[in-house]
Amino acid sequence: ARRGAGAHPQRGMTDNGMMSRAKVLTIDNMNPTVKKVEYAVRGPIVQRAVELERELSEGMKKPFAEVIKANIGDAHAMGQQPITFFRQVLALCSYPELLSDSTFPEDAKSRACRILQSCGGFSMGSYSASQGIDSVRQDVAQYIQRRDGGVPCDPDNIYLTTGASDGIVTMLKLLVCGEGTSRAGVMISIPQYPLYSAALAELGAVQINYYLNEEACWSLDIPELQRAVNEARRYCNPRALCIINPGNPTGQVQSRQCIEDVIRFAAKERLFLMADEVYQDNVYADGCQFHSFKKVLFEMGPEYSETVELASFHSTSKCYMGECGFRGGYMEIINMDDDVKAQLTKLVSVRLCPPVPGQALMDLVVNPPQPGDVSLFVISSSGARFQERTATLSALAEKAKLTEQVLNTVEGISCNPVQGAMYSFPRITIPEKAVQEAAEKGQAPDMFYCMKMLEETGICLVPGSGFGQKDGTYHFRMTILPPKDKLQILLNNVKEFHQRFTLQYS
Amino acid sequence: ARRGAGAHPQRGMTDNGMMSRAKVLTIDNMNPTVKKVEYAVRGPIVQRAVELERELSEGMKKPFAEVIKANIGDAHAMGQQPITFFRQVLALCSYPELLSDSTFPEDAKSRACRILQSCGGFSMGSYSASQGIDSVRQDVAQYIQRRDGGVPCDPDNIYLTTGASDGIVTMLKLLVCGEGTSRAGVMISIPQYPLYSAALAELGAVQINYYLNEEACWSLDIPELQRAVNEARRYCNPRALCIINPGNPTGQVQSRQCIEDVIRFAAKERLFLMADEVYQDNVYADGCQFHSFKKVLFEMGPEYSETVELASFHSTSKCYMGECGFRGGYMEIINMDDDVKAQLTKLVSVRLCPPVPGQALMDLVVNPPQPGDVSLFVISSSGARFQERTATLSALAEKAKLTEQVLNTVEGISCNPVQGAMYSFPRITIPEKAVQEAAEKGQAPDMFYCMKMLEETGICLVPGSGFGQKDGTYHFRMTILPPKDKLQILLNNVKEFHQRFTLQYS
Repeated sequence: ARRGAGAHPQRGMTDNGMMSRAKVLTIDNMNPTVKKVEYAVRGPIVQRAVELERELSEGMKKPFAEVIKANIGDAHAMGQQPITFFRQVLALCSYPELLSDSTFPEDAKSRACRILQSCGGFSMGSYSASQGIDSVRQDVAQYIQRRDGGVPCDPDNIYLTTGASDGIVTMLKLLVCGEGTSRAGVMISIPQYPLYSAALAELGAVQINYYLNEEACWSLDIPELQRAVNEARRYCNPRALCIINPGNPTGQVQSRQCIEDVIRFAAKERLFLMADEVYQDNVYADGCQFHSFKKVLFEMGPEYSETVELASFHSTSKCYMGECGFRGGYMEIINMDDDVKAQLTKLVSVRLCPPVPGQALMDLVVNPPQPGDVSLFVISSSGARFQERTATLSALAEKAKLTEQVLNTVEGISCNPVQGAMYSFPRITIPEKAVQEAAEKGQAPDMFYCMKMLEETGICLVPGSGFGQKDGTYHFRMTILPPKDKLQILLNNVKEFHQRFTLQYS
Repeated sequence: ARRGAGAHPQRGMTDNGMMSRAKVLTIDNMNPTVKKVEYAVRGPIVQRAVELERELSEGMKKPFAEVIKANIGDAHAMGQQPITFFRQVLALCSYPELLSDSTFPEDAKSRACRILQSCGGFSMGSYSASQGIDSVRQDVAQYIQRRDGGVPCDPDNIYLTTGASDGIVTMLKLLVCGEGTSRAGVMISIPQYPLYSAALAELGAVQINYYLNEEACWSLDIPELQRAVNEARRYCNPRALCIINPGNPTGQVQSRQCIEDVIRFAAKERLFLMADEVYQDNVYADGCQFHSFKKVLFEMGPEYSETVELASFHSTSKCYMGECGFRGGYMEIINMDDDVKAQLTKLVSVRLCPPVPGQALMDLVVNPPQPGDVSLFVISSSGARFQERTATLSALAEKAKLTEQVLNTVEGISCNPVQGAMYSFPRITIPEKAVQEAAEKGQAPDMFYCMKMLEETGICLVPGSGFGQKDGTYHFRMTILPPKDKLQILLNNVKEFHQRFTLQYS
């Protein structure tokens, strides 16, 4: 009896004869832009995965013993251990009584003190400045300067954020304007990380798709950018170009040349550049290297470095630390108009400040222990000395290779090299019969495929349709994060499922 | 040379003869709704306070030794100590190695284990469910049920948030719709907490003002609500009614009768109710008591409890804990349409999850140590046994009283009792000459007054104009949070400043 049909237009009879009031807020009169939002990474397939987990825990029989959530880049949930030093400092900051505990290393203590001294009342419970803690922004600026071979970085251009998502949405907010053919358009890659399409839908901006070239290892081709912007100018006002490098979900790492070409294109077409660089440490393939947009921009000389407007985003959630739950991040803005920057500063002040523990963690990420510091090396449980960061990144590189290799042994699956980031995004052949059955169910064919895989194997992936793909092609995104032995089993199960599926629908 | 005027419309000559490119994103072509956002709590006066702090630290001579930020409810920054148990658990969750440390109390350890067991991979670094960690939402539901004398609460109706602000903005997002005279309108009190006006400006909704009755201790009068909604129906579509109880900035605590009347009004006028109850523990005045909207709603019987749509907000930032930096919070939604709720769940999934340390803290707030637990009592530095929570709240009650008393001794200042929350909002008389001088400077008279007070005394307050007030009346908001001896000095300085100011402009 949600919408009754009584004499009074807003009242109706329920089944038990009571008068019911129609809802004030209904699906028909709610914000229409919110309804358009889609976010596949946590969509229906994940909801079903959570249900399956509950059913398993209640003792229900399934053809698998556990659900493996390979849908999301959630490293710790997959068993990756946090960096010891980071967590020691966070514990010290949370409960400063521990500063007198002799079991904590001195460098962790002095770092905790430095962070707490930047907090009001020596407490992470105080609000920070809305732009973020001063000393953290200084450390971020120094990190960027080191990373970019000395290209200067002004802490005043750093805004700490609640994960990278928060920064991206905030920047998009500034850019949105206009109606009809002057409505702001934003160029995003297809496949894309669906935060972008979701934010654009919510903000009522136009999504302008440019397609990555799957045949050339998901490379970004300038002619395709040109095609997309030319077509878009007929119906909207293209204002920004978003790049994800290393790529999510596609794992490609852009060459220096490609970045330079993109910057020239943005300058020529007068587009605000947004560089999502949250996977900047996650580069595995031989011959690949991370180049920041900022560095390339500055190497191109003042014609570009003094004019092209750029925002770059980073996060505590990915790379070797994988601290997603803390929601730490930053953005750096370059060449932004001063008046617009003042508006940005005002806008972020409404939410008071990003979470302070996430800010502290961001500080540790950009300024980790250096050679000579006590905490650079830690003792592993097996007693061997190793660097946690290097160990994590080498393991990821191995798993990237393994994923590509195993998937490419399967007839009907073809996987580009996972050059970087945390995902494989293989192309899958789905037989015509399966496409038809999916259509009958009103599902995208790769959603149908992934849902079936989940029910039969417990493996939770995200269908390619959630990221966008060329019509008639199908993919899934799978993280490379499970521990190696588990990943091996997982890949074999994917292989067997695909073979079974293909047989069933051929 | 930000906007040049060369032959090419988008290029111009800079002073040194180089070609400059006009900015892509300018104040003229940026999102117009962002430009309308105002947030006085962190506005120009606070920016000046930060500058003054820097000048002091650089050794510049000022007529004061330190800047006192009484502009924001930031308890720890004012020296309030965190609750020991909370911080012990957070340290344990941050660095689980400490679980084997015998100096931590057993109840803190078992709580940390319970939280970590709800986190993927036993780590706060994992993403949680977008709605929040299951076990935390269960604890929140039990807290609400206890608080409301057994009125049932379903964990499925609880959404953990990034501070209360995040929840409030999310709810407003759902409600926004329409254009012209069908544009969604939202009723907010004047004076109000400026998050509301800022969010409405950004979302492009209509702000409908209803005035609190200063003469009757800032009470909320139904005829005024009726006047406001009647007038608003001529130019917009009123959809929601926001209430802050206990009041911010005005400190009033609503009577049970008043809440019942508000609920009847919302039902009659078909308004979605939003109850901002973040100060629910901050009630000081004799005869005053916090009544939750949820409890009153359910006591009014099924005609209301089964129909009136309500969202209620809480936070870790206020009350006795004052943990602002962690950005923890929750909202409970009642009688929301199922389809709308599914949209809400989808919407929050885009941002992945609220910060996990804030969720952990929220859990501790709603489920603190109980009589019999080891950590209920802690040893203070003076060796006496006391309950931190009670001590903090009694101190706040004393300071609320002291503030009211001292301010009311000043000719030209009149202050309602601070029944609850964390602020006084006294009315001040500003001489005509000062009003004129402010007008010449393009400042609101109370902004002029507060700016002058800051320059002369180092005391940072927020002018009443930042919250809204009846035309021709002037106020400021001042927190009651400084330690008692410091508050006494601060109040005397305010008194002396006001006398000097009055004399100067008379």
